[in-house]
Amino acid sequence: MLPGPTNVPNRVMRAMLAPIINHRSADFVDLYTDVVAKTQAVFETKNDVVALSASGTGAVEAGVVNMVRKGDKVIIPVNGEFSGRLAQLIEGQGAETVRLETEPGRNATFDQVKEAFDNNKDAAAFYVVHNETSTGTMVRYLDRVADLASRNGAFYVVDSVSLLGGSPLPVDKWGIDVCMTGAQKAVAAPPGISPISVSPRARKRMEERPPSTMYFNLPRYFKYYEESRHTPFTPALPLMYAYREALSIILEEGLERVFARHKACSDALYAGLGALGLEPFAREEDRSVSIVALNYPEGLDDAKFRGLLASKFKVLVAGGFGNLKGKVFRVGCMGEVGPYHVMRTISSVAAALAMMGVGADAQAGLRAAEKELAPLAP
Amino acid sequence: MLPGPTNVPNRVMRAMLAPIINHRSADFVDLYTDVVAKTQAVFETKNDVVALSASGTGAVEAGVVNMVRKGDKVIIPVNGEFSGRLAQLIEGQGAETVRLETEPGRNATFDQVKEAFDNNKDAAAFYVVHNETSTGTMVRYLDRVADLASRNGAFYVVDSVSLLGGSPLPVDKWGIDVCMTGAQKAVAAPPGISPISVSPRARKRMEERPPSTMYFNLPRYFKYYEESRHTPFTPALPLMYAYREALSIILEEGLERVFARHKACSDALYAGLGALGLEPFAREEDRSVSIVALNYPEGLDDAKFRGLLASKFKVLVAGGFGNLKGKVFRVGCMGEVGPYHVMRTISSVAAALAMMGVGADAQAGLRAAEKELAPLAP
Repeated sequence: MLPGPTNVPNRVMRAMLAPIINHRSADFVDLYTDVVAKTQAVFETKNDVVALSASGTGAVEAGVVNMVRKGDKVIIPVNGEFSGRLAQLIEGQGAETVRLETEPGRNATFDQVKEAFDNNKDAAAFYVVHNETSTGTMVRYLDRVADLASRNGAFYVVDSVSLLGGSPLPVDKWGIDVCMTGAQKAVAAPPGISPISVSPRARKRMEERPPSTMYFNLPRYFKYYEESRHTPFTPALPLMYAYREALSIILEEGLERVFARHKACSDALYAGLGALGLEPFAREEDRSVSIVALNYPEGLDDAKFRGLLASKFKVLVAGGFGNLKGKVFRVGCMGEVGPYHVMRTISSVAAALAMMGVGADAQAGLRAAEKELAPLAP
Repeated sequence: MLPGPTNVPNRVMRAMLAPIINHRSADFVDLYTDVVAKTQAVFETKNDVVALSASGTGAVEAGVVNMVRKGDKVIIPVNGEFSGRLAQLIEGQGAETVRLETEPGRNATFDQVKEAFDNNKDAAAFYVVHNETSTGTMVRYLDRVADLASRNGAFYVVDSVSLLGGSPLPVDKWGIDVCMTGAQKAVAAPPGISPISVSPRARKRMEERPPSTMYFNLPRYFKYYEESRHTPFTPALPLMYAYREALSIILEEGLERVFARHKACSDALYAGLGALGLEPFAREEDRSVSIVALNYPEGLDDAKFRGLLASKFKVLVAGGFGNLKGKVFRVGCMGEVGPYHVMRTISSVAAALAMMGVGADAQAGLRAAEKELAPLAP
């Protein structure tokens, strides 16, 4: 139940055992063209797609260094570790950021975003973290941003590392120019592959102003793909097989069902853990469907609680990030997650709390969760 | 028999099936500290080591962008695809290169390197590709460069992506400040992990002038390692397990034996394939022990030859790179390679040549190879 890397289905793990092939062969072309097609299906896009051999931060960096240049003005909401890193990356390019800062656990509102666009008609781009892994918030108005951006001729870039595949993000319908994610979150593959999609106009911009990086140079990837369906550098082959298998599982289940499952499971976790007396860290309207962050009851020891959960109940959850360390714990609700994981997590958390002398009504927690899981009943 | 990614032993493949763990946990600390210690043992160094989740080009880029700045002067021998890329990366930083260009298949001599140092006392660094994968050459005087570099106060950086682990490269003894490699070559792990070592004075330089990249920012890796033995970004966990297992296999066999095996096998491939009438591309004194590049006999079709080898004999070799495409083929001699691989490759090449109507004396080839393999006899 980690907020990524998440559990990986055995079918996906076993896919890594495929023999090591020549990445300059027809075998690799078969693998990689399938990876691209399935990534496009999950991103709901016809845009160019590159699957980078790197972790999510690699794709996020690629989404910045290929797009942003010195002197550009970029609007970006900031309210946690990962949106902070994104802003840092943008500023590292010598760009000027218009930071829409809100306190952790709360998102900038759509009206604040609109106001920022109104006040910065010269903004070259809007960058946003879809789902803030460090605090368990997600942004719910991404379908309405393209209109604002295109009115100003700005590019629209979404970092959905910890959510894509777990909640709707139809890239073409929502007009997203560049979208990045990581394989180890809602896609439920091992970490190490990170896809990115690029619209034709964003691609044109990248090709006009290619970046100095070699490993994350997207125009170079486009060129290799068009010439030979290869990647410019040796790909992490076992992870590429695993990632493809994970995408196949999602497409077999169907995007709508996958999204509904994530939604019902997170509703159940919020309801069930809430009934145990644990308060979510994020404001209700901003809560994530893939990461459930909860405040510790006053005085509860983080290391001891998570240690108990891990050693006695084999349930792994994560601690807080940065200055939330010791104050919150975070439960991943992504990938394989289903009613079994939800019920077992709630019962284990109730038991660990009880062992630490904190009263928690396990029955109330499980009943509340079960109610929310009803839509998933066969 | 590819020049990387190479065959991966089953023991290494199976290591990837270890459960996905929290990369912010004690389990990961155990894994990663062991990875660092074993990497140091194979690099023969006490320097700081980082295992990046990226392919070799990622480590090479890290070795450049953390070290080189606008206005620096850098001496670099160039004679193939990978040394060309390295020079391009250095120039991409705004640095000035002193390129020691030689024709492909020949290395700059030690005297040429010495002369370049004499003529460029202000050079900030010397960068060199140890083993040029595109043409099958290796540099044999890396033990003598540190003296030249230190006389000028220059940094000494070695890209040994396609050789480290297959031939001696004692980083500390030879005074190498920064050394990069990839897991999928002589180390015989799957592609996707690329280690880099950094001397104290190179580290100081990096920390004084940190790069704008986030994913390849080595000072950030040092900081995380010192604070918690973690990596700053989610590592490619299955590949990290596999890489550790591959290092263990090398250390169990012993570095000296591993090097002797690579040497004898490449001697046998040169002798055996030579006796079949195939001429090595590289000049004799510059020939690599991990990549054997051979000229095609006049008129032999590259795709057909390699296709036959693959389909009839299950032996994979690689074609030429860039403008050597169709003119040479390349046989990897790395990782697991042993007498069986050598003999089977020579007999299969002889058979494929015969099927294409090219006379080749298989017996002479196998005998010549056997002679060179004698030192490995039990």
